[in-house]
Amino acid sequence: MASSLHLSQALLARAVYLNSDRTSSLSSTSSLSFPSLKPKPATSISSTGSRRRTASTTTVRATAETLDKTTEVSLVEKSVNTIRFLAIDAVEKANSGHPGLPMGCAPMGHILYDEIMRYNPKNPSWFNRDRFVLSAGHGCMLQYALLHLAGYDSVKDEDLKQFRQWGSKTPGHPENFETYGIEVTTGPLGQGIANGVGLALAEKHLAARFNKPDSEIVDHYTYVILGDGCQMEGISNEACSLAGHWGLGKLIAFYDDNHISIDGDTEIAFTENVDQRFEALGWHVIWVKNGNTGYDEIRAAIKEAKAVTDKPTLIKVTTTIGFGSPNKANSYSVHGAALGSKEVDATRQNLGWPYEPFHVPEDVKKHWSRHTPEGAAHEAEWNAKFAEYEKKYKEEAAELKAIINRELPADWEKALPTYTPETPADATRNLSQANLNALAKVLPGLIGGSADLASSNMTLLKSFGDFQKATPEERNVRFGVREHAMGAICNGIALHSPGFIPYCATFFVFTDYMRAAIRISALCEAGVIYVMTHDSIGLGEDGPTHQPIEHLASFRAMPNVLMLRPADGNETAGSYRVAVLNPKRPSILALSRQKLPNLPGTSIEGVEKGGYTISDNSSNNEPNVILIGTGSELEIAAAAADDLRKEGKTVRVVSFVSWELFDDQSDEYKESVLPASVTARVSIEAGSTFGWHKIVGSKGKTIGIDRFGASAPAGKIYKEFGITKEAVISAAKEVSRNN
Amino acid sequence: MASSLHLSQALLARAVYLNSDRTSSLSSTSSLSFPSLKPKPATSISSTGSRRRTASTTTVRATAETLDKTTEVSLVEKSVNTIRFLAIDAVEKANSGHPGLPMGCAPMGHILYDEIMRYNPKNPSWFNRDRFVLSAGHGCMLQYALLHLAGYDSVKDEDLKQFRQWGSKTPGHPENFETYGIEVTTGPLGQGIANGVGLALAEKHLAARFNKPDSEIVDHYTYVILGDGCQMEGISNEACSLAGHWGLGKLIAFYDDNHISIDGDTEIAFTENVDQRFEALGWHVIWVKNGNTGYDEIRAAIKEAKAVTDKPTLIKVTTTIGFGSPNKANSYSVHGAALGSKEVDATRQNLGWPYEPFHVPEDVKKHWSRHTPEGAAHEAEWNAKFAEYEKKYKEEAAELKAIINRELPADWEKALPTYTPETPADATRNLSQANLNALAKVLPGLIGGSADLASSNMTLLKSFGDFQKATPEERNVRFGVREHAMGAICNGIALHSPGFIPYCATFFVFTDYMRAAIRISALCEAGVIYVMTHDSIGLGEDGPTHQPIEHLASFRAMPNVLMLRPADGNETAGSYRVAVLNPKRPSILALSRQKLPNLPGTSIEGVEKGGYTISDNSSNNEPNVILIGTGSELEIAAAAADDLRKEGKTVRVVSFVSWELFDDQSDEYKESVLPASVTARVSIEAGSTFGWHKIVGSKGKTIGIDRFGASAPAGKIYKEFGITKEAVISAAKEVSRNN
Repeated sequence: MASSLHLSQALLARAVYLNSDRTSSLSSTSSLSFPSLKPKPATSISSTGSRRRTASTTTVRATAETLDKTTEVSLVEKSVNTIRFLAIDAVEKANSGHPGLPMGCAPMGHILYDEIMRYNPKNPSWFNRDRFVLSAGHGCMLQYALLHLAGYDSVKDEDLKQFRQWGSKTPGHPENFETYGIEVTTGPLGQGIANGVGLALAEKHLAARFNKPDSEIVDHYTYVILGDGCQMEGISNEACSLAGHWGLGKLIAFYDDNHISIDGDTEIAFTENVDQRFEALGWHVIWVKNGNTGYDEIRAAIKEAKAVTDKPTLIKVTTTIGFGSPNKANSYSVHGAALGSKEVDATRQNLGWPYEPFHVPEDVKKHWSRHTPEGAAHEAEWNAKFAEYEKKYKEEAAELKAIINRELPADWEKALPTYTPETPADATRNLSQANLNALAKVLPGLIGGSADLASSNMTLLKSFGDFQKATPEERNVRFGVREHAMGAICNGIALHSPGFIPYCATFFVFTDYMRAAIRISALCEAGVIYVMTHDSIGLGEDGPTHQPIEHLASFRAMPNVLMLRPADGNETAGSYRVAVLNPKRPSILALSRQKLPNLPGTSIEGVEKGGYTISDNSSNNEPNVILIGTGSELEIAAAAADDLRKEGKTVRVVSFVSWELFDDQSDEYKESVLPASVTARVSIEAGSTFGWHKIVGSKGKTIGIDRFGASAPAGKIYKEFGITKEAVISAAKEVSRNN
Repeated sequence: MASSLHLSQALLARAVYLNSDRTSSLSSTSSLSFPSLKPKPATSISSTGSRRRTASTTTVRATAETLDKTTEVSLVEKSVNTIRFLAIDAVEKANSGHPGLPMGCAPMGHILYDEIMRYNPKNPSWFNRDRFVLSAGHGCMLQYALLHLAGYDSVKDEDLKQFRQWGSKTPGHPENFETYGIEVTTGPLGQGIANGVGLALAEKHLAARFNKPDSEIVDHYTYVILGDGCQMEGISNEACSLAGHWGLGKLIAFYDDNHISIDGDTEIAFTENVDQRFEALGWHVIWVKNGNTGYDEIRAAIKEAKAVTDKPTLIKVTTTIGFGSPNKANSYSVHGAALGSKEVDATRQNLGWPYEPFHVPEDVKKHWSRHTPEGAAHEAEWNAKFAEYEKKYKEEAAELKAIINRELPADWEKALPTYTPETPADATRNLSQANLNALAKVLPGLIGGSADLASSNMTLLKSFGDFQKATPEERNVRFGVREHAMGAICNGIALHSPGFIPYCATFFVFTDYMRAAIRISALCEAGVIYVMTHDSIGLGEDGPTHQPIEHLASFRAMPNVLMLRPADGNETAGSYRVAVLNPKRPSILALSRQKLPNLPGTSIEGVEKGGYTISDNSSNNEPNVILIGTGSELEIAAAAADDLRKEGKTVRVVSFVSWELFDDQSDEYKESVLPASVTARVSIEAGSTFGWHKIVGSKGKTIGIDRFGASAPAGKIYKEFGITKEAVISAAKEVSRNN
């Protein structure tokens, strides 16, 4: 290849650059690792020449020159304007979308994708790539334009023209499951920065676990662009507090400080001092005053950020939203609507852009074309490095590969504990812990923790320590009381590498705090395991604020979620089995605080079907009545069946551990469990009856709770609310009579 | 009364005290109103005598002496220990609860309720009372003990002994709907501080609207105690950022800085600099280093906080969790479990507490007994003041009274707009704005806004300006992109005075960000109106991250929520009518982005029934088929009915605007709309079909969306997802055949 010499020179230059970067960062560690408690104002990098700026921009410029002789400022500007107009044109054609952010953030976008990030456009899932997250997801045309220029096959010219259209690869917000090269799904504000914290956590963890003094086999950065909206959301403060606590030095977030949100100037609702807040959270903060044309300032800021290895960095980049639009820039009108043809023309005039819509000038195209061979070389280089690594560190290499490719050991399922009716009763939260600990031994990608309820959720992995700044190789993550960020961080971990199996935990009722993150798990196909204990009024005295009622129904209604409510030991193990076997569906395990007996008839295999018969004294698939329960109420159904059978009834007891899995079964199977001819059905579940009519039918009865809970010992509440064996028997008799 | 002279002296002294407070704060305003951008370290008040401390504690001491000669330190300590042991004993008896916080926070609790706050224990809803919120709700025994000592009838001796028992007035977390004297419902962390922001907003708003140079008729403080858990939650950062932005000078929050959360030392997950973060958020920050015994330090901090009138104040009070317990203090084991009888004994020994469980020493009882007459005097004084006010400012007094007592004008409903089928089609979000603006003119307590989507949610009140620091009398609240805090702040506003009707808005899908606050609305009986636009795939291009699917079902399953999905103008007006008429149930209005026609047969009155027939060409309550729709799909059902009728079928079309309201109807009414004999039923709704089987029955059909949405123009998605007239007709024919 003609460019090979040039390319290897470039790689060499980059290696030297990166190396010098690291050396300098190491030499400055001693001062950086003892941060003063006194806040300092953010380092400001502006066009007025400061010592720091002169020093660093010189270095960056030299590197850029070495990388590619052609990256003169004029070409950079041309590339930046290409990005701007691809965004403008796509939004204009769709007559829908957000042109303002791409126009303002094009310079940082260009520098990231063209000068800084390592990736392979022809293999977007190359393991050691730098990750990029557009937390301000509405500005997705920025990312589509960058992926297009960088040579990703997922965003061709025709895809840009299909922006926001049915079936296109360029939907209205970035979706990892639609577009290769998109790492996570963003749009709901604040999720992306928290995903970024998860990606950076994953990198730090794997690096600590697998890197060797002679081989940094895991080594990438995570870059995020977030806007004012993300900054206002509580989830971002939660996630960034953790990032600071964990010292995620390779997380570099660009804060698009444009002072405009949908409702107008941020002055109307957002006047806090963001720099100071991030310093309080333990971040290094840099301010780039001119984000519109200050290329060297942006480069210098990134260099400085990389030099700070013990803290994440926030680069506040002051930009003009809709930069280049003569009449709409710096106003909310450019935030979320097409410019309109007149303003598009005016912007073309203003920025000196003579080209037709969607045009990429040849010199820009040529300039970016190097990323295809360069990316291939990055991957090849890493593959060679990994081959070396594998020779020396066989075991570690196998484990890392298992995480990279989600290779489950052949016999992993044997690790799942099994139970018999003789096994003493236990809370499913405790049984869950037994499963987690058993699985952690065979699944190298299992990592997670609780939102400050580890000892209540029973989530500690006993053979591992805490993932902390100084011990990132460990696998117990301490999220603090930050449920929302916890979920989004786990999404980031899951999407970092397919073999990660992140789990996280809180009380089931507090899924309300993290529902937006759980929904993103489901949408973006992140197989997070949600360990949700204290799953009903059975938690007792804490009362209605802590007792879930509608939560089972609310997740059963959510697409692509596996809502599992195991009744005992075998079903808990079965639920974990299902969770591990469904890497593209999040699983929510609703687990009891209270002890539950191990029931005859439950099984790991049964759980896989979602609903299955655990006992039946009828012979012809026509019992007098079918009793259907889940979780802690399956015991009640079973006890009621015993009594009814003593009275001569034929009774089937069905465990309905997961509605979604049951829905996935064949009609024959469904008929074998819930025959259409048997309309005498009773359901019992200590939660909302909402939805149960589909299962019990018009002639069945539902026993549940359609009010808020109460503060009292659990047994008392069950009795007062009528979640009892007696109620089941009475309902069974009634439906038998009427059917 | 024997104490009347003493009492009036005390009141006089307090008036002088408060007045001097204000004078000093006014004189310092000029320097305070130009806060330096450079962060300062928090003012530290410790036992080492600083100038500030000496000055302020002297003043406070003098005031305390004037107030009551008997408040010597020994009695204060005795009172504080009474609080501690009431908490210890109640938790011990229940064998459930959280003794650690009350033991650590008893000093600040004592000072607040005994020395600082103005309230009337015999009328807990006296309008001008100071509000107190225990955001760290798990420590509720602190508040129960304080209410008990202060003379609230809601917490008698026997109530303390019934802590966390069925039907008691002392549930496991503070619940305003169970216990008079509790302002809001807390427990889920972070909610309380956000409620506090809402309470303080309400005060600032009313004060600006109704106070006159000669009469400060609205004038109270809002005090909050929050812990490390609250601080970690994103909602608290959202709410506190707004509090700083709004300059809520009468919000004083005590941060119980005890370094312990459930999982152990906060070092494991919470190492940010909280002081600095709050300064960044625009708060005044004071550090009380000795919260365990530093009574004068606490008093001085409150005095300083009151002097800062343009910023909320965070008083960081460093305490020892479980103070007094020789073996469990300062450890997580005292956080959420009874001490155990041995440790209770050791603590009695350690703190020199010879009394039996639940004993309140006579001198403590006597000391606190003055709050009953004092409280009555506070209220009487205010009533007299109000009578004066009413004479001078008749109109304002009437409006304020309407807010205090939720007096709706007799003809308020006439303000609701009405529509005919000839009225041009419009989006229900626009119709909603017409209703909001019409209602704002007749309902003085209507106040609210959007989470940075005012121009999309259509929530601006055109006759009012923005509620801002300098214009708090206005009624458009700009929440920024902070949905969770928005909901909780509205809960605070709603619970401040019954006549407040707060509304708040975002896209319906982002209820996921604020679900915990909405659930608290429902539980605590706060009649917030949630204006949720962009309620389905009908929003189009923004795609699946923005398209609600499961949200209708998820709220229909939530107790005490009114989930309303109006189909057109009349139903939107009807929904607002229902919302205003249900002050103890939050209403969620799901509103369309897209235009909808005004349908024949819809009505304001119909909405009240939840489900009602809008058209029917059958004669005997036995149509061939019943088509049931909501919101934007009612139009489709109506169109399908037209076509089916042309083919000779008898078809009833039912609008099912609110399931909860329909559930509330009589069996006769229900039968008149959905006769049991007509099992041929088809539902259509652009959302999850989950739950619909209860309505359509085993033989009916549901048309809906049980997957995530897609990014494309709305019409295209409707077609691709089969939410069409043709699908309804086909389903109708199928169910007619089969039934």
